[in-house]
Amino acid sequence: MARASKREQIAQAALEQFHLRGFHATGINDITAAAGAPKGSFYNHFSSKEESALEALDRYGAGLRFDILTAPGRSPLERLRAHFDFLRRPVVDSGFSQGCLVGNFAAEVGDHNEVMRAAVRRGFDQWAALIAQVLTEAREAGEVSAGLDADDAARFILSAWEGTLLVARADKSSVPFDSFFHMVFGVVLH
Amino acid sequence: MARASKREQIAQAALEQFHLRGFHATGINDITAAAGAPKGSFYNHFSSKEESALEALDRYGAGLRFDILTAPGRSPLERLRAHFDFLRRPVVDSGFSQGCLVGNFAAEVGDHNEVMRAAVRRGFDQWAALIAQVLTEAREAGEVSAGLDADDAARFILSAWEGTLLVARADKSSVPFDSFFHMVFGVVLH
Repeated sequence: MARASKREQIAQAALEQFHLRGFHATGINDITAAAGAPKGSFYNHFSSKEESALEALDRYGAGLRFDILTAPGRSPLERLRAHFDFLRRPVVDSGFSQGCLVGNFAAEVGDHNEVMRAAVRRGFDQWAALIAQVLTEAREAGEVSAGLDADDAARFILSAWEGTLLVARADKSSVPFDSFFHMVFGVVLH
Repeated sequence: MARASKREQIAQAALEQFHLRGFHATGINDITAAAGAPKGSFYNHFSSKEESALEALDRYGAGLRFDILTAPGRSPLERLRAHFDFLRRPVVDSGFSQGCLVGNFAAEVGDHNEVMRAAVRRGFDQWAALIAQVLTEAREAGEVSAGLDADDAARFILSAWEGTLLVARADKSSVPFDSFFHMVFGVVLH
């Protein structure tokens, strides 16, 4: 395999460092050290920490495997469950840390940086729209109540997921995830 | 009214600055400047930024008016709705910023500071236990389904609230709050 370009290495290291440490606690030197690059080289590829954080958000989104929500062969609710099951795995595997980069940036940076906030908002909007589409299909397939408002439910489920990540990280346990799955698939979408 | 002690002014300023800026972005000088105190005076009252952040968490919790959840004169679900309605107000009034200090510290600091994480966890646990108590009363009063698991539902609703705050701050709109109230009181607790 060809060695990743220096820019690619720095961009990927930025994603990992922002996810690990948060926005403010990540220094340019953390990123370049993780990429095995000299500190000054960061600015050959990015004009600012903010620019690399925006690219980190895009890269993070690309790794969320939204294709699971639309892949054929499973019912809409089975796809939705597989989606959250996929997202839960790395959090459990990392000892209940890191959570969701979109939510982390919302909590830490959104109030203070309009460009970052707009990117976080776009991320949430696109994600909620995909979930709403799955819920509309589930309604048409008779998997959920005919009276379910797909947009309301999608926004709510996405919010519940983001909060579940926060609480699970504080709890360092699967209990908040268990409650999420029980309540979403046993009560909200019954 | 007696003038607040210097310690009280610094502790209150610390709460406001941490809530406004986050943990890492708050410097000791931000706190002392907001309190109108010389920078060095911080260390007459607190041994570290962490110590003042732990006290800020306690002060924040004391302002959440948990008494609304237990005050007589309203049904359990009316009390739960009044609780979240009370918590929504300052977020709307501040232009959808700041959110919940407990959730913010969970997102930004919990992975990296065991003392802070334990304090955040205690905060979430106590809060979820209060909500579970209200849901148990609602079940006994026939306000919610007899099959509702109060602990699962309480954890889930608290997580959903924390996530709703993140999404509303990104969205800068009431729409995520509307979805929370519709879904919690119209679907989860019906």
